[in-house]
Amino acid sequence: MKSLAECIADDIMSMIIIEGRFHPGEKILNESDFAKELFVSRSTFREAVKILSERGVLIVRHGSGMYVSKDVLENRENRFKRYESKIDALELNEIRMMIEPETAYYAALRASNHELKRIAYYGQLVENKIVAGVTDRRTEEIRFHLSIARAAHNSFMDRLAPTIFDAIDKSRNVFNLEEVRQGTLLDHRMIIQYLNERNADFARTAMRSHMLRGIQALKMER
Amino acid sequence: MKSLAECIADDIMSMIIIEGRFHPGEKILNESDFAKELFVSRSTFREAVKILSERGVLIVRHGSGMYVSKDVLENRENRFKRYESKIDALELNEIRMMIEPETAYYAALRASNHELKRIAYYGQLVENKIVAGVTDRRTEEIRFHLSIARAAHNSFMDRLAPTIFDAIDKSRNVFNLEEVRQGTLLDHRMIIQYLNERNADFARTAMRSHMLRGIQALKMER
Repeated sequence: MKSLAECIADDIMSMIIIEGRFHPGEKILNESDFAKELFVSRSTFREAVKILSERGVLIVRHGSGMYVSKDVLENRENRFKRYESKIDALELNEIRMMIEPETAYYAALRASNHELKRIAYYGQLVENKIVAGVTDRRTEEIRFHLSIARAAHNSFMDRLAPTIFDAIDKSRNVFNLEEVRQGTLLDHRMIIQYLNERNADFARTAMRSHMLRGIQALKMER
Repeated sequence: MKSLAECIADDIMSMIIIEGRFHPGEKILNESDFAKELFVSRSTFREAVKILSERGVLIVRHGSGMYVSKDVLENRENRFKRYESKIDALELNEIRMMIEPETAYYAALRASNHELKRIAYYGQLVENKIVAGVTDRRTEEIRFHLSIARAAHNSFMDRLAPTIFDAIDKSRNVFNLEEVRQGTLLDHRMIIQYLNERNADFARTAMRSHMLRGIQALKMER
């Protein structure tokens, strides 16, 4: 569990590197105004600033104010990665739960016939691995779920795809629980069937149930 | 509307730069196997390959096979940007529709008290601009929605934040339709109220209705 000051530090970091509200080298709001906007006490705010100074994000010049480090965006990629590395399998599956039922919904409405065939084909590859008792079926799972995401025909899906991979990758421990294996067989078949029937609401619900199963297994594993 | 060959070209591109299935310099599957996996005719497949050769993604060596260009990942960022630039306001709002109702749900469950105050504060800033008849309230809208997303306490949200900005930015044309202005006042107030009451289901529904309003306005605009 993060402390309040750590949360506030993350918020300020997000304002700089995500929102672009304060630029490299720029002076940020004074302590009193900023603490007020963030609805925290000045002492919590000061603690957050200390965390960010230690990370090299903020520079405090006594008597002058707080400045954003000049090279904060130069290694933005690296900072961002470190920032993200903490995302665990459960958080990733929470995101999948938001996105994939909707992609199944849109895929049922928008998939071309050749896309439907391809989804069924990748589904079959997953099934073959499960039936053969092969322990690693990550590649096939990724292709199955990605082929559905792409069939939703929303150009943004490609940006989300790495998250789907990452979530599948980090969930591999639960792949071989017997209930997950059997559940996956049923879920995938239902999803494919509803997609083929162009039944968008049912496709969404089947994907939702599939995601729930994964989340439940991850929670039991903890 | 994209042609089938263009869709297939996008699929192959996605397999290379997103899925990492084929690496730079590597030979890809032969025409016959690949066309079969993609469930398209060989002539459609050939057309897709032609598109990708023209884009410099694939290199066809006659008598030898198809290879992924060696520098395909070097300017991956640029390719990716060009790839994404086509995303329009409606697509972005489709994504917001998937994500933001759920962030409101989790925010109602997980927001700290100071986060709730901050959300209400940013909501007030939006309201002030609407009441004052100021035409550009993008900054305030972004802070309001981002503060809710952050209060969901899922570290992944920061990765999605730029999409929220982008969507708000591209929707600015509809901000000043009278029904959107009045609707936003009501929606934001309801969202804030449900968050404060920790009523997660209602917070989600209120956000859903807010997103729908935006999508409807964008569709009318077309």
